[in-house]
Amino acid sequence: MAVFKAPTRDIKFVINEVLDFPTHYAGLPCGEDATPDMIDAILSECAKFCEEVLSPLNAVGDQQGCQFDDGKVTTPDGFKEAYQQWIEGGWQGLSHPIEYGGQGLPLSLGLLKSELVGTANWAWGMYPGLSLGAMNTLYVHGTEEQKQRYLPKLTSAEWTGTMCLTESHCGSDLGQMRTRAEPNEDGSFAITGTKIFISAGEHDLTDNIVHIVLARTPDAPEGTKGISLFIVPKFHVDESGEMGEFNKVSCGSIEHKMGIHGNATAVINFDGAKGYMLGPKNEGLACMFTFMNTARVGTAIQGLAAAELAYQNSYPYAMDRYSMRSLSGHKNPDKPGDAIIHHPDVRRMILTQKAFAEGGRAMLYDAARQGDLMMFAETEQARAKADDMLGFVTPILKAFLTETGLECANYGMQVYGGHGYIAEHGMEQIVRDARIATLYEGTTGIQAMDLLGRKVILDGLKLYRSFSKRLYKYAFSILFKPGMSKYGRKLLSHTFLWNRLCLGILLRASRNRDAVGAASYDFLMYSGYVSMAFFWARMAETAQRKLAEGSDEKDFYEAKLETAEFFFERLLPRAIGHAEAMRGSVGSMMDMPLTHFDVR
Amino acid sequence: MAVFKAPTRDIKFVINEVLDFPTHYAGLPCGEDATPDMIDAILSECAKFCEEVLSPLNAVGDQQGCQFDDGKVTTPDGFKEAYQQWIEGGWQGLSHPIEYGGQGLPLSLGLLKSELVGTANWAWGMYPGLSLGAMNTLYVHGTEEQKQRYLPKLTSAEWTGTMCLTESHCGSDLGQMRTRAEPNEDGSFAITGTKIFISAGEHDLTDNIVHIVLARTPDAPEGTKGISLFIVPKFHVDESGEMGEFNKVSCGSIEHKMGIHGNATAVINFDGAKGYMLGPKNEGLACMFTFMNTARVGTAIQGLAAAELAYQNSYPYAMDRYSMRSLSGHKNPDKPGDAIIHHPDVRRMILTQKAFAEGGRAMLYDAARQGDLMMFAETEQARAKADDMLGFVTPILKAFLTETGLECANYGMQVYGGHGYIAEHGMEQIVRDARIATLYEGTTGIQAMDLLGRKVILDGLKLYRSFSKRLYKYAFSILFKPGMSKYGRKLLSHTFLWNRLCLGILLRASRNRDAVGAASYDFLMYSGYVSMAFFWARMAETAQRKLAEGSDEKDFYEAKLETAEFFFERLLPRAIGHAEAMRGSVGSMMDMPLTHFDVR
Repeated sequence: MAVFKAPTRDIKFVINEVLDFPTHYAGLPCGEDATPDMIDAILSECAKFCEEVLSPLNAVGDQQGCQFDDGKVTTPDGFKEAYQQWIEGGWQGLSHPIEYGGQGLPLSLGLLKSELVGTANWAWGMYPGLSLGAMNTLYVHGTEEQKQRYLPKLTSAEWTGTMCLTESHCGSDLGQMRTRAEPNEDGSFAITGTKIFISAGEHDLTDNIVHIVLARTPDAPEGTKGISLFIVPKFHVDESGEMGEFNKVSCGSIEHKMGIHGNATAVINFDGAKGYMLGPKNEGLACMFTFMNTARVGTAIQGLAAAELAYQNSYPYAMDRYSMRSLSGHKNPDKPGDAIIHHPDVRRMILTQKAFAEGGRAMLYDAARQGDLMMFAETEQARAKADDMLGFVTPILKAFLTETGLECANYGMQVYGGHGYIAEHGMEQIVRDARIATLYEGTTGIQAMDLLGRKVILDGLKLYRSFSKRLYKYAFSILFKPGMSKYGRKLLSHTFLWNRLCLGILLRASRNRDAVGAASYDFLMYSGYVSMAFFWARMAETAQRKLAEGSDEKDFYEAKLETAEFFFERLLPRAIGHAEAMRGSVGSMMDMPLTHFDVR
Repeated sequence: MAVFKAPTRDIKFVINEVLDFPTHYAGLPCGEDATPDMIDAILSECAKFCEEVLSPLNAVGDQQGCQFDDGKVTTPDGFKEAYQQWIEGGWQGLSHPIEYGGQGLPLSLGLLKSELVGTANWAWGMYPGLSLGAMNTLYVHGTEEQKQRYLPKLTSAEWTGTMCLTESHCGSDLGQMRTRAEPNEDGSFAITGTKIFISAGEHDLTDNIVHIVLARTPDAPEGTKGISLFIVPKFHVDESGEMGEFNKVSCGSIEHKMGIHGNATAVINFDGAKGYMLGPKNEGLACMFTFMNTARVGTAIQGLAAAELAYQNSYPYAMDRYSMRSLSGHKNPDKPGDAIIHHPDVRRMILTQKAFAEGGRAMLYDAARQGDLMMFAETEQARAKADDMLGFVTPILKAFLTETGLECANYGMQVYGGHGYIAEHGMEQIVRDARIATLYEGTTGIQAMDLLGRKVILDGLKLYRSFSKRLYKYAFSILFKPGMSKYGRKLLSHTFLWNRLCLGILLRASRNRDAVGAASYDFLMYSGYVSMAFFWARMAETAQRKLAEGSDEKDFYEAKLETAEFFFERLLPRAIGHAEAMRGSVGSMMDMPLTHFDVR
């Protein structure tokens, strides 16, 4: 069974020492609550809950799965009790406004919470996680009356929420959606249709579930411009926020899937259920993106979580499993073989996990910082700027961290050898659970097109330049600094190449628009490596400074430097493979006629 | 549910048109039986059995799994009936000597059979597959009496065999093995110990199971030099080959694992079971390598099978799923979206599957040709030469084809989007089943060290030179040939670089022996790409020739050229990433002290 220990020291390193959250928080309106002591206390309480309550339920949830019986879903043993503790701890509303029962702390603290919960038990964490998406959508697009009605019980976690987007014939392409919303006389709508893949769509953790549903009114234009958003509670909710009668929202079945067995992926049937329009008519898709961006960053966390959990369970095994002798001399002469951590290829896998987990953490917390700036912006300009920067990095975070997280999870199995394939060690569960992360909330391919097509090319490279300027600026600042210049040089040359790759694609795309799609995956991965290099350089610089100052945590900072070195020497070079691949001809990908796929 | 159609046209292309098996077979002692007509008939019969009988049982096997009850293992519904048909078809002894009931056909035909069976239903195929390993070991190392006793019923498939190597504390490092073999007065041995991970170790398909077991005699030296091989049947077998009493070989449990649920991975207890030494005393490990090489090539087939099955089930879905519009103009204006195969990134994934499946097939059948030459060699020199060449490519085939096979299986899920994660489509089963392939029969890391450490460096680059000479020679031969020169140039430059990488590692290793292990994984992957490039160039050349000759299978040959183009433009460039990564400093991988892994 995989065990989990909250990486609190590493989180504090990232937020306090690298990204300077104390100063950042002090500048926010809620700054006086978000003191370093407060953050420490929250971190340690959350760590305790995740280590002691959620982590032991992770294997249970996988083995038992959710049970479906005549519309009812039973979650695995212990899930309900853990959820009660979640309610009692007031965890759901940590970063939500005080007026609806939240604690009013910065958005980025929510990330910290999500990281710990998600690493300990991803399937469990999806119940409150999806609810956050519904809450955020209500906060941003709801009327005051709607907020008063639904938010208090969602914020307290007494109810959960979901997002109902997908239908069986359409996932990414929501313009094809068919669920209908017929106007009732009282201003509400009768919602009819079937939604699939609704995570946390039905369960026994709470009495009510508030679904946020995409549907079409009868007069709506076709395609994406005719979609509106509706609030559809499973049980009616009256003006005072109390639960009433059943609202014709039922669970038709739950899916048998590869992993995240503890979370119910539900088919939800709306049979003329009463719904309330949320946000402007026919602008549902735009409103949905409030949720979508949160969900995408949330899914990026799943990549980090997989890398972290796989790392935590790989190195102890590798230190305790003795097999073969090291080529560079016996390391455990008193044992029948050397600990496998002394074998270079085992180290390669474990250091890859460490580098991606810690690098991913820095990337995510930096994005969360942008999230805070967006949330508490005092001017629309400041808000838009933070929103743009967050929008630019979101597809990189989502796709790059889930792809590398899955790689790290697979290395976890690989370090265990044949034992990795056996259920009892929990390593294969990490892979099965993490495998969904490159699929839902927009596949890697969708993220790649979002980045290259929309955020880079359609944007005329403005956002791209603004982001890469950060990298250039930083690279120049360390270029002649002792101990840092090697990283400065590499970061600079990779950023230069990134720029050339951009321009090359632009040039090709002017002749053949498929050049964008053809390059998109490799471009995204390249962007991920170069972004992570930026953060690894910064972490190395911080560690060097601390060591120069004579820190008494020498091991910690040296480990950072060693991991940075590994990243630059062994992982960043992969970017060159992606650069080479994206230069391949567009025709090699696009020219084969459809009839040729089948002749064999 | 994944469906399977035997890729017979493609197999014939590889064996008849690219590798010229007709001429090759004509030169073998069994040549008069292995006529093209005979091969065709076998291929089509085997295809029928695999498509109609084995393929429909693939999902059943996964869902039901094997059941364990008090030492007995029940295989999934239909497995036993399919196995009866296998016996009746005489499939087991296809490539085995007529004197023991086989059909005496070339070894390479066995590969053809294994490919079809394994792609249709890998878990089922492991029962006869493991038995082949036991049979081959008996053929090579058994006395005539032992062969007469055990081989006829193994060859007819009335019994199966297994290979019992692993114990819970040792897999790759068999020197640590503890199972004891105490001599009995009658010349036999009493075998005592517990073996784990015994594939097909217990089942209800046959009455008897013949285990080939590694154990130590009381006077044996420690480590790998004190291991002998024993024949230990589950039920005694008398001189006439008839089954007798129970032999104290019992199944303690079967493993719960990620995939291949239809195959029982058994814990086998030997409680003083009677065993018979096979081959010379204390040379069990060397004898075992007879099996090991077969098993490694056999596992490479699993990689090919995963790529092939994923491909077969990806492109039809991509042609039938309509989502979003193509950037280069509407492709299905009458549909709500364009078929996703028009989206470049979906094509990238599907062409990757196609290129790896077809490229891997050519690599494997070329190796099987070496196997024939080894088996039917008339001189020891010829045998050794073929054995060496097969030994050189074996780790490349095993590791490279299973790693790429797993990638292709994952792309299968990815093409299906969220639906790929759901069990009913069968795409996630392909991933779970294929995931074992990079672990068993020597992990990717073990193969990488076998290739770089043993087959390249310890061998003084002799085998490496002899293999790369084939590539150089071929690259030069096409360098100025119209239509082929682009492939010639790329093959040449990558082979040159391969050579430089070899020399670079050798130089580093002279200062630091860990340089070998540190580079091994990337070196292996590089070797895989450059080897596959050789075969893709040859396939392209064959296709060009056929088209020039005016073949009426224009689509087939054009598809080959298009796939070759994709391989050279989009997949071969990845080799450069591996080349860059293996140039990273050895210290970046090896210098971090063990105490630093935990400080976070």
